[in-house]
Amino acid sequence: MSDKKTSILNAVERLTENYRQEELFLPKSGKSLPSRAAVIDFLKDMRSVIFPGYFGVDSGADMFPEHYTGYLLNDLYERIKAQIEIAFLYQGEAQETAADHAQTVACHFFEKLPDIQEMLLKDVQAGFDGDPAAKSKEEIIFSYPGLFAIYTYRLAHELYLEKVPFIPRIMTEYAHDHTGIDINPGATIGEYFFIDHGTGVVIGETTEIGNNVKLYQGVTLGALSTRMGQQLANVKRHPTIRDNVTVYSNSTVLGGETVIGENTIIGGNTFITESIPANTKVSAKSPELVIKQPRTQVSATNVWDWEN
Amino acid sequence: MSDKKTSILNAVERLTENYRQEELFLPKSGKSLPSRAAVIDFLKDMRSVIFPGYFGVDSGADMFPEHYTGYLLNDLYERIKAQIEIAFLYQGEAQETAADHAQTVACHFFEKLPDIQEMLLKDVQAGFDGDPAAKSKEEIIFSYPGLFAIYTYRLAHELYLEKVPFIPRIMTEYAHDHTGIDINPGATIGEYFFIDHGTGVVIGETTEIGNNVKLYQGVTLGALSTRMGQQLANVKRHPTIRDNVTVYSNSTVLGGETVIGENTIIGGNTFITESIPANTKVSAKSPELVIKQPRTQVSATNVWDWEN
Amino acid sequence: MSDKKTSILNAVERLTENYRQEELFLPKSGKSLPSRAAVIDFLKDMRSVIFPGYFGVDSGADMFPEHYTGYLLNDLYERIKAQIEIAFLYQGEAQETAADHAQTVACHFFEKLPDIQEMLLKDVQAGFDGDPAAKSKEEIIFSYPGLFAIYTYRLAHELYLEKVPFIPRIMTEYAHDHTGIDINPGATIGEYFFIDHGTGVVIGETTEIGNNVKLYQGVTLGALSTRMGQQLANVKRHPTIRDNVTVYSNSTVLGGETVIGENTIIGGNTFITESIPANTKVSAKSPELVIKQPRTQVSATNVWDWEN
Repeated sequence: MSDKKTSILNAVERLTENYRQEELFLPKSGKSLPSRAAVIDFLKDMRSVIFPGYFGVDSGADMFPEHYTGYLLNDLYERIKAQIEIAFLYQGEAQETAADHAQTVACHFFEKLPDIQEMLLKDVQAGFDGDPAAKSKEEIIFSYPGLFAIYTYRLAHELYLEKVPFIPRIMTEYAHDHTGIDINPGATIGEYFFIDHGTGVVIGETTEIGNNVKLYQGVTLGALSTRMGQQLANVKRHPTIRDNVTVYSNSTVLGGETVIGENTIIGGNTFITESIPANTKVSAKSPELVIKQPRTQVSATNVWDWEN
Repeated sequence: MSDKKTSILNAVERLTENYRQEELFLPKSGKSLPSRAAVIDFLKDMRSVIFPGYFGVDSGADMFPEHYTGYLLNDLYERIKAQIEIAFLYQGEAQETAADHAQTVACHFFEKLPDIQEMLLKDVQAGFDGDPAAKSKEEIIFSYPGLFAIYTYRLAHELYLEKVPFIPRIMTEYAHDHTGIDINPGATIGEYFFIDHGTGVVIGETTEIGNNVKLYQGVTLGALSTRMGQQLANVKRHPTIRDNVTVYSNSTVLGGETVIGENTIIGGNTFITESIPANTKVSAKSPELVIKQPRTQVSATNVWDWEN
Repeated sequence: MSDKKTSILNAVERLTENYRQEELFLPKSGKSLPSRAAVIDFLKDMRSVIFPGYFGVDSGADMFPEHYTGYLLNDLYERIKAQIEIAFLYQGEAQETAADHAQTVACHFFEKLPDIQEMLLKDVQAGFDGDPAAKSKEEIIFSYPGLFAIYTYRLAHELYLEKVPFIPRIMTEYAHDHTGIDINPGATIGEYFFIDHGTGVVIGETTEIGNNVKLYQGVTLGALSTRMGQQLANVKRHPTIRDNVTVYSNSTVLGGETVIGENTIIGGNTFITESIPANTKVSAKSPELVIKQPRTQVSATNVWDWEN
């Protein structure tokens, strides 16, 4: 029989040898990485500043909104600034400049918060107008995954523009985890944006989306090919979607030069790799359905059998 | 360099001004919204009443099941009744009637629990019979996302029928978050229902599903068009799926008048917008595959290049 | 009005009667099931041994890596061994042999940990090389869902090979919950494996995947038909994917005899049920797009109407 002590000691020896061989596992002393948990807690707590009636626990919010908001924002500012500074230091920024740089970024970020809140109110409106199953705007704030993904993206995008490492992607991947909606923080997205159902949506890093755009579950706005890997970094690889476009479920639009013109509607299950003019409706000519009658009914097992 | 104090004070001023302008952010004093956390905790704790051997922590469950169940149900009753009352009050119901209304709804709901438990046992059986990868029925209860989505739907549907605001959708979106399966609480679903893998499944509000139905990942039972938005509320927009139907992965069935007849099997990757008769097998005539040999092998980078 | 006491007592009576009728709900006294929470905590805490700079909280990790790793591994060993023993006992193994069996399995498992760590380092490299949007390898470790799914699969697969009940699937379904990627623990997967975006990916139990394989969101590696249910258990039902294959988004490859030859690239949105030779590029001949101009612009509501 195997021996516990030997198994563990052998594992410890080889694991720690791997730490020494590959700095990626455990950065050399004096450097540390941002805390994923701290970034995610920031994202969750900021939501109760943006929508205080919904996710907050503080009953004073409606009594003294300035106090509530001021107290929380001060705390949130310190928390995100600390993580931004760690990220800059890890990336090699000098000790003397990282703190000031982090402060500048945090200030810009907090100045944008009211604009982000106003955009989110428009996103809620777009959701309510666009979905016959929505019973109220409150329901959208409470429970629509699309809104949480957009909330997260709108915050992360500001930090992406400031070239903060790690943190924007930790944020959007947290939303991806919870919604199945994968919006790269580098994408550019206009007002009144709505994603319904949402599972499986992918919006690539260099995508540009106008105003009043609506996407359904399973829509990919992606790259044509990625086989050149890192050589394609910073190249526009993902499509441009103009104002008032709807893309129905499970459709794919690929390529950095692909433009979907304004007011166009893309039907479900299409696969598009070239530009589509404005004011059109595009649908896939559905492949012929093959419909067969069963040869025999296998009644005992309640399933059908037939020739293929 | 930017100044922290100014950034925060400006943000507080504009955020709280937004709260004043738009009541949606922070309902006027005296009204409050249900607690999303309380609804989700209810859903999680109820699971240890329905399946006490699996998710409970109380070792007394198997010794004194009446005491265990009685204690938990009493607690769960008060918790969900409180949230239902808050939801009715928010919606404008009078203080005098909301408490009684919430009690009536909670009583109906609790009377249905044993039926729901019995239906879930049949759903487990359908999963075991339908999936060669299932090692045991216990494995399905422990870890199949389809079962968690159906459990949640079967509870939420009862509250939907009682017209409780917010709570049914908070429940099903919690399951959507954890499973990638989006079942609107308004759908009607029969016995022995099984969803395998499940990520990306969407079942719309007015869908009707019979007994012994099996769905795979990525199946949409959806609406043909939603561009009339809220004007379509309460219209049957989603399909009807009769008994003993299987819909394989990534297929889409759309439209309120579309009926899939009993015993029919829908192959993978189909896109269906019209009714299909009973006792048939439907598959997409697969689009021709284009197969190309590579022009040159770029051996250095281990990728292939070819003419497009 | 309904009466709370009656509703609860009736529910208790019928629920506990159901427990008595069906042992699946509440196993007979003396037997218990593994703790799902304990298995998931193991998975989360093991991550801070494999990647100590990222998910750990112990600042001593970089100072005394042997102590940190030794302490954690000893604790993790006891925790997983206890769950394995419970699983063997539940399945009917004799009290006298279950503890020794669990120890043997736990020792084998811990001896494999350094190999798994080394494979994960290669998976990180494959992710960085394959994705132009990846800013760094650290970003992949922190936030790529594909890496978390592969980490979980590589651990669960070892326990699957040892025929441990329940635990492997609890692990992979936890990753499925958080990533939308459903890898059955029975699949065989080579080195340098990368899944980008990942939502909706399904990799069936008997799939075989070579080295340097890359998959995108929505890819199914599945079975052709499952209507024979449990009669198909242990039959190879899922495809074989050879070295250096890429499968682009939302493609489906089905069948136990289907082999995708080495160096082949499968384009997006294909549906493949037969083998594809090596060194080829496969794409779906896209179904013709139907493009219509609008008949009238309904300017008031900002939507388009046209003939269908």
